[in-house]
Amino acid sequence: QYSSGVRKVTLIPGHGIGPEITVAVQKIFEAAKVPIEWDEVDVTAVRGPDGKMGIPQKAIDSVNANKIGLKGPLMTPVGKGYRSLNLALRKEFDLYANVRPCKSMEGIKTLYDNVDVVTIRENTEGEYSGIEHEIVDGVVQSIKLITEEASMRVAEFAFVFAKENKRKKVTAVHKANIMRMSDGLFLRCCRDVATKYPDIKFEERYLDTVCLNMVQDPAKFDVLVMPNLYGDIMSDLCSGLVGGLGLTPSGNIGKNGALFESVHGTAPDIAGKDMANPTALLLSAIMMLRHLKLHEDAERIQNACYQVLKEGKALTGDLGGTAKCSEFTNAIISKL
Amino acid sequence: QYSSGVRKVTLIPGHGIGPEITVAVQKIFEAAKVPIEWDEVDVTAVRGPDGKMGIPQKAIDSVNANKIGLKGPLMTPVGKGYRSLNLALRKEFDLYANVRPCKSMEGIKTLYDNVDVVTIRENTEGEYSGIEHEIVDGVVQSIKLITEEASMRVAEFAFVFAKENKRKKVTAVHKANIMRMSDGLFLRCCRDVATKYPDIKFEERYLDTVCLNMVQDPAKFDVLVMPNLYGDIMSDLCSGLVGGLGLTPSGNIGKNGALFESVHGTAPDIAGKDMANPTALLLSAIMMLRHLKLHEDAERIQNACYQVLKEGKALTGDLGGTAKCSEFTNAIISKL
Ligand SMILES: CC(C)[C@H](C(=O)O)[C@@H](O)C(=O)O
Ligand SMILES: CC(C)[C@H](C(=O)O)[C@@H](O)C(=O)O
Repeated sequence: QYSSGVRKVTLIPGHGIGPEITVAVQKIFEAAKVPIEWDEVDVTAVRGPDGKMGIPQKAIDSVNANKIGLKGPLMTPVGKGYRSLNLALRKEFDLYANVRPCKSMEGIKTLYDNVDVVTIRENTEGEYSGIEHEIVDGVVQSIKLITEEASMRVAEFAFVFAKENKRKKVTAVHKANIMRMSDGLFLRCCRDVATKYPDIKFEERYLDTVCLNMVQDPAKFDVLVMPNLYGDIMSDLCSGLVGGLGLTPSGNIGKNGALFESVHGTAPDIAGKDMANPTALLLSAIMMLRHLKLHEDAERIQNACYQVLKEGKALTGDLGGTAKCSEFTNAIISKL
Repeated sequence: QYSSGVRKVTLIPGHGIGPEITVAVQKIFEAAKVPIEWDEVDVTAVRGPDGKMGIPQKAIDSVNANKIGLKGPLMTPVGKGYRSLNLALRKEFDLYANVRPCKSMEGIKTLYDNVDVVTIRENTEGEYSGIEHEIVDGVVQSIKLITEEASMRVAEFAFVFAKENKRKKVTAVHKANIMRMSDGLFLRCCRDVATKYPDIKFEERYLDTVCLNMVQDPAKFDVLVMPNLYGDIMSDLCSGLVGGLGLTPSGNIGKNGALFESVHGTAPDIAGKDMANPTALLLSAIMMLRHLKLHEDAERIQNACYQVLKEGKALTGDLGGTAKCSEFTNAIISKL
């Protein structure tokens, strides 16, 4: 359904450096003649009819209509009872799988040069259920919720992803030695789904062991699937191995929509100064193109981006360069 | 109370390579004339009067009498309803703080050379509460339990540890942005305690951010304190940075006792072959000496161990050497 014609995509520039890195992506996409039309909306929190602060209705309508969006960083509103807007968006559209590829890139010097892993994180429940109680004074419980439904769909997603992306192995990451019932259920779902994909290797590993092995030898891993919090941790850890959140993309995928986003902060200190690095948002937008089956466009833009990073002549300040965001952007455009 | 006389210490050699690495430590301590008398007990699971498998009474009595123990790896019994004996020990003696120092050592080549962090893990509750329910078919909840009492004592422990060991900073690691009530309580306890130690810097960081920063620049961190599961993850991650579980010590400290242990596995494949590396258990035993205020003995043995590792002439197979466990042991003894 996605393979021809112009696609309308919701665009949420976000706050801080969001607008300028969004413009960078727009410019690159325009130069690459990507068949996309942007539907720009604002996601600054507004007070809803129920009195609670939340996502503006216009943004919700846009994502519901377009079923796909690209999003810059959002300011986390401070104050009690405030839910992160990032989380609110994932919830609103039931974006149940969070996909975070981390790949070593030439020109980005880190201690590692052989990272190529994809974290697939259950994105709707687990430790993020939001259910907490103070039982008695000084005794609090938080509920980790694991359901067969959510576990099955994210496990299925992981294997389909592995298959479509010609990946060889899926590792289920868990602590079922401790949380026997909840992580046990998650693990059983992964095992169940694994049997349907005999060509993809399946393994199960403890979360602590994966952390240890990941920093020693990331080449041990390929696709990783895990409950919500573990994915939060693991994706950041892996991002650190390849250069950090400014360089790694993220996609939130649901049955009726998908939202691609850079997961770094709004960097208010450099906002508006044409100094930000748009790579994470650009790579997220490239993930989005693949999701739209615009594989050729994705490949072409990605190569241009990788080449500019590799050549190292137009790097932004975070990468030790002196280029402006707009110069980096133009360098990519010149490679298209 | 500990500073003079011979101290009796419970010794749990454990399974697999446990006995041989235990002998290594005993030999080194004997050569160093450490004023310790070992009280050796077995901790193979036995069926108790309640029909459940657990720790033998003799072992419990010994630890209760001596209030201090050294422990090799224990085989995790397989089978439903089986609790890890390691966990059972922590629970039995209310060993509420798990201390895991990770320090880069000369001669141990990893990607990092500037790691010097200590993870202090709440060791009795959190995600390890063991409370789980299947609400309806396919819907499971696990309860993370955070109490003010346990949070206060581990926070206090962290600051006392930092002070006694001349550490500069304590970082509380949390996800209070998600688990506002439970991690929020933990965090408030850390803040409370921090005010009593104005000379020690205090900071609060998200778990995911700490993972990311830790792999990029471990020198950012010093002492870290956190809930149970986070500590499980973080201590393994840090261990990976300095060479793995075969090289990093661990201590479980309570009000009425302390148990020091190597946290690697039983390595059944090389058990009984005089091939194991006793470093983790030796460093754990050295932590134990410091706990007993036998600082001089601790320093002397630690220096000998570090020197042998640095010289690299008597390394065991896991470190790329060809030395037997006993040869490595003798090399350390010759440096005393
Ligand atoms: C901002 C925060 C609520 C979020 C999370 O914990 O999921 C972030 O860390 C992420 O990974 O997107
Ligand atoms: C063996 C296992 C139950 C244990 C844990 O999860 O705490 C281990 O990983 C540890 O860190 O000591």
